[in-house]
Amino acid sequence: MQALVLHNSQLTYRSDYPQPEPGPDEALLRVSLAGICSTDLELIKGYAGGFNGVLGHEFVGVVERTGSADTDGWVGRRVVGSINLGCGRCPVCLGDGPEHCPNRTTLGIHNRDGVFADYTTLPLTNLHAVPDNVADEEAVFTEPLAAALRIREQIAVHPTSRIAVVGPGRLGLLVAQAMALAAGDVIVLGRRPMTLELPARLGLKTGLVEAQADDSFDLVVEATGNDAGLAHSLRLARPRGTLVLKSTFHGHADIDLTKLVVGEINVVGSRCGPFAPALRLLELSARAGGQAPMGLGVQVRPLIDGEYPLRDGLVGFDHAAQPGVHKILLRPN
Amino acid sequence: MQALVLHNSQLTYRSDYPQPEPGPDEALLRVSLAGICSTDLELIKGYAGGFNGVLGHEFVGVVERTGSADTDGWVGRRVVGSINLGCGRCPVCLGDGPEHCPNRTTLGIHNRDGVFADYTTLPLTNLHAVPDNVADEEAVFTEPLAAALRIREQIAVHPTSRIAVVGPGRLGLLVAQAMALAAGDVIVLGRRPMTLELPARLGLKTGLVEAQADDSFDLVVEATGNDAGLAHSLRLARPRGTLVLKSTFHGHADIDLTKLVVGEINVVGSRCGPFAPALRLLELSARAGGQAPMGLGVQVRPLIDGEYPLRDGLVGFDHAAQPGVHKILLRPN
Repeated sequence: MQALVLHNSQLTYRSDYPQPEPGPDEALLRVSLAGICSTDLELIKGYAGGFNGVLGHEFVGVVERTGSADTDGWVGRRVVGSINLGCGRCPVCLGDGPEHCPNRTTLGIHNRDGVFADYTTLPLTNLHAVPDNVADEEAVFTEPLAAALRIREQIAVHPTSRIAVVGPGRLGLLVAQAMALAAGDVIVLGRRPMTLELPARLGLKTGLVEAQADDSFDLVVEATGNDAGLAHSLRLARPRGTLVLKSTFHGHADIDLTKLVVGEINVVGSRCGPFAPALRLLELSARAGGQAPMGLGVQVRPLIDGEYPLRDGLVGFDHAAQPGVHKILLRPN
Repeated sequence: MQALVLHNSQLTYRSDYPQPEPGPDEALLRVSLAGICSTDLELIKGYAGGFNGVLGHEFVGVVERTGSADTDGWVGRRVVGSINLGCGRCPVCLGDGPEHCPNRTTLGIHNRDGVFADYTTLPLTNLHAVPDNVADEEAVFTEPLAAALRIREQIAVHPTSRIAVVGPGRLGLLVAQAMALAAGDVIVLGRRPMTLELPARLGLKTGLVEAQADDSFDLVVEATGNDAGLAHSLRLARPRGTLVLKSTFHGHADIDLTKLVVGEINVVGSRCGPFAPALRLLELSARAGGQAPMGLGVQVRPLIDGEYPLRDGLVGFDHAAQPGVHKILLRPN
């Protein structure tokens, strides 16, 4: 089958990659559409200890077959899938779930082939059926939208909260939309006016990050993944405020600990989120024809900046790595 | 009057410092006993933008007189005092209190003369009467004990929480005792066996920080104030666990953001705390003659490593700066 394979930080298109075989509790999934995430771009640079295998974890697909006869109800269904697979036996799995299992594998990120391929496999417990009125081009955003919603699981967002999302990128704009559902006053901050055009078009309030006063937000979500964005984000959080780190940071960074301690800031790392609410939100937004005003739904299609056949996946990756580019999709067939 | 005065990072003993005059809502306090804190040692190095004035913020004293006639009930009372003075009018003061007022002054730390002197002044609203059975040598710990209790205001500490306090210093040992009141499993971690002798004598569980496995604590309190302690503390926090920064960090530090984000760690800056519960705890512990078993009270007297007359304050500061030294007290008369 076709696949984009990462080996020693080198990404290659292969047409002869062996098709995976589902285990007894797994499904074989035909990938319909997949999305390139900033984590994929980081993985190519060697993030996460150098992943080797099929890259990709954002996808929508169709169940081709399952590993055992009594789960055939899944066959032919359109699905998305959560990306962490725990051992299911350790205290972490039994308590918190698979996301932090020390023995976990993660689809296309850690010890498990991903979705930039004709086929992939996942346990049936990871699958979520996609509602009929949610198109593939919307469903493919389930995983990053779930990650955006994760923030809402971790901290209380109040309707009166002053919220800034620093970084108008592919994840930041999902975060801002998820935050706008709970609070009236969300602003997306960027370094250059050009990067604020899309969020403004989506109906989000925008501003230049350097123009914002110190200590002026209750909640700041860092979604740039770079040191300058992090420094600004901490600067903007009010004393006793919250700073959410939503980006995949590569390694170490320098943090102003005086501000953090004296201001009693709460810094929260945030990663994978819940699929069911993300799908529900896509379904409700689809009912409004993707036209719900900001704060009453999410708009994901405007984030799509390009689509490539999987065989041109390397070109798609080059496109995704350009500044100001949001979501790039890959279509196996 | 006598005073230890900091000017351009130079600490000097003066016998001719002008005695302060209380404002209409303030009290003139005769300082009975004062304690040297790590923040004082940092201030001498230039922390907090270079404080100039009388140093010191941990004290117990007696109300000499007040600035107006109708508050005379305070005169002669033994008191401790909270150290932040807000403007009382801004949204921060009206909402959260004075601790984070952008226009605040802080006793002996920021724009207000402190307590290493014969006399100091504070607003009456900052004063707390000391219960009769709490000796001066115990009451002088009210401010740092309040700071230790602040953690309990910020995060939920469960009886089943596995808690590590990294740094067996003057503040770490108060933090560990405050944590032990809520949870069975608190361990104090240090780099050298010698530093663990006092916590062991107090009845606290102890261990070497480097011998602890990654991800093995639900809650880690960083109380070293140095980069190595911070790195260990983050290493020891379990995924979705909490790291409290309790030290006064000087400036910036390098943090492993991958662990913070992938592990979804919650980092909480923590500073000043509530005086009333600290005094109540000292009062209850005093009823047990300072001999309450760990977990049923706090023991502060064993932390005292020396007491100096104020005129020998500079010698006291040298003593306080030695490794492994806990609380050094200064007595004006």
